[in-house]
Amino acid sequence: MSSDHHEAVSHSLAVSLLGLGNMGIAVGQTLLKKGHNLTVWNRTPSKAAPLVAEGATLADSPSACIAASDLVILFLLNDSATYDVLQGIQDLSNKTVLNLTSGTPDHVRKRAEYVQGLGASSYLHGAVMVPPGLVGLPDSLTLYSGPRAALESIATITSTLGAAKHVGEDPGAASLLDNALLSIMGGLFEGFVQSLALVGRASLPIDEVDFTSDLVVPLLRGFAGWLPRIAGQVKSKEYGAEVGSTLAMQLEALENIVVTGRELGLSRGMLGSMQETIREAVQRGKGGEGVAGLVGLLTEQ
Amino acid sequence: MSSDHHEAVSHSLAVSLLGLGNMGIAVGQTLLKKGHNLTVWNRTPSKAAPLVAEGATLADSPSACIAASDLVILFLLNDSATYDVLQGIQDLSNKTVLNLTSGTPDHVRKRAEYVQGLGASSYLHGAVMVPPGLVGLPDSLTLYSGPRAALESIATITSTLGAAKHVGEDPGAASLLDNALLSIMGGLFEGFVQSLALVGRASLPIDEVDFTSDLVVPLLRGFAGWLPRIAGQVKSKEYGAEVGSTLAMQLEALENIVVTGRELGLSRGMLGSMQETIREAVQRGKGGEGVAGLVGLLTEQ
Repeated sequence: MSSDHHEAVSHSLAVSLLGLGNMGIAVGQTLLKKGHNLTVWNRTPSKAAPLVAEGATLADSPSACIAASDLVILFLLNDSATYDVLQGIQDLSNKTVLNLTSGTPDHVRKRAEYVQGLGASSYLHGAVMVPPGLVGLPDSLTLYSGPRAALESIATITSTLGAAKHVGEDPGAASLLDNALLSIMGGLFEGFVQSLALVGRASLPIDEVDFTSDLVVPLLRGFAGWLPRIAGQVKSKEYGAEVGSTLAMQLEALENIVVTGRELGLSRGMLGSMQETIREAVQRGKGGEGVAGLVGLLTEQ
Repeated sequence: MSSDHHEAVSHSLAVSLLGLGNMGIAVGQTLLKKGHNLTVWNRTPSKAAPLVAEGATLADSPSACIAASDLVILFLLNDSATYDVLQGIQDLSNKTVLNLTSGTPDHVRKRAEYVQGLGASSYLHGAVMVPPGLVGLPDSLTLYSGPRAALESIATITSTLGAAKHVGEDPGAASLLDNALLSIMGGLFEGFVQSLALVGRASLPIDEVDFTSDLVVPLLRGFAGWLPRIAGQVKSKEYGAEVGSTLAMQLEALENIVVTGRELGLSRGMLGSMQETIREAVQRGKGGEGVAGLVGLLTEQ
């Protein structure tokens, strides 16, 4: 195997990167570190300074930026920012467009059509599953969807960003999984915020216990073990209470959580959507079911 | 060391157990397996059948039940069911009362007063941190609060239920941690339900990936590693974005999750409380903060 340095020189590619938020900057720095030839554009040009200092070229328009490379990476804040940039571009002939901008599966399918309408040779969507600070580490996962051959043609670039997984030809596939995985992150953080707020406001002396390291992290490991079983229940539409934990019991638990927050004077409560959804499930006779029953409630009409 | 059988015989105690829901039944079965002398009561007496078949005595009133033992365990559905039972009891002289019924810290403190008013020698609160199916396993954690000496006096019983941790003399301490830990369970399940609903409704062919085992479980392990750092930020009130993941980015992610649910026709969306809370944080100028900033929003006024 060649050394990293040798590899960087022998495989260096030209890449145009549009969008320099926290994530775009992290991607740009990673590409520059591996010796790729980077041209960047951002609506607020000053954001490009750290990349220019490391060798990137700053273009003064989206069109000038994409003219510099066959591979165009977009990493904008959202769908509307994506079109603001694309509308400044007339022609994408022979370009491979990799859009890392989050969106919904339908957003992504429409972007693919739009970009192909400008003559792009292929459109790929990528969902970077790590925060900016972890971009470029070998285990940092990005999910890709779109034509597999196009993805393989930019393997030098995707491997620079970390681990690459192709999840489907439908350009929306990676976005679907992105939204599903970020749902879990959102829920976990929601619960963790509530827990830290409760423990913090109570300021009880707690004997011999570090709340997060001694209690939360081990508990989370236990919960992780349940998840594949719950997913299996959903697949077979068998919604029984896994290890005896029923929705009726979970509703009691959520009501206690909300009231505890009020007792402690929190300015607002989290977990309201979960509470309402479980309450509806219980009212509809699903109190003896487990968590899997909630998936039934959301998906079956 | 003596064998389990020998140990069971030599340490067997009399225990009165009131409340035979899924959790109460699991506790009763665990105590009977270890040879303890169990008297039970339940509002619906037929629920006692599996325990009676294994040797428990069924009492016909709460008073008759507690008369049989110095240790009284309550495991009811909620606070109101607890008082329904306690109001049928005139005297708890010389009894140790262990209440495993969930509630808020204030609920638990009021129960302690009430029970002590009936002459109980001590009141302990316990929070069983596992579902019914895992009660009695050596690693299954129960948190206890109340007088430490009283807890030590019933170590034979608490060790039967699994791992015991004393978390404070204030009877509400275990309930506080219970509510905090169940917040995390609630949030994680909320996010997981949304994710399974999205993936299930989309029915996209996903290449070479099992959603839960290949993506969710490893991701969750990654998130678990962030939590002690976020807790540390909260302690020092430094709310910067951990590894660059800002609330502004998370708001975009949550909006995509909600819209993806609508695109796929889910009957309702989860994570609404998290979305609203982050939106308020961003509106109040905290868009550049990380998750820790939300704890600040909930606790600081």
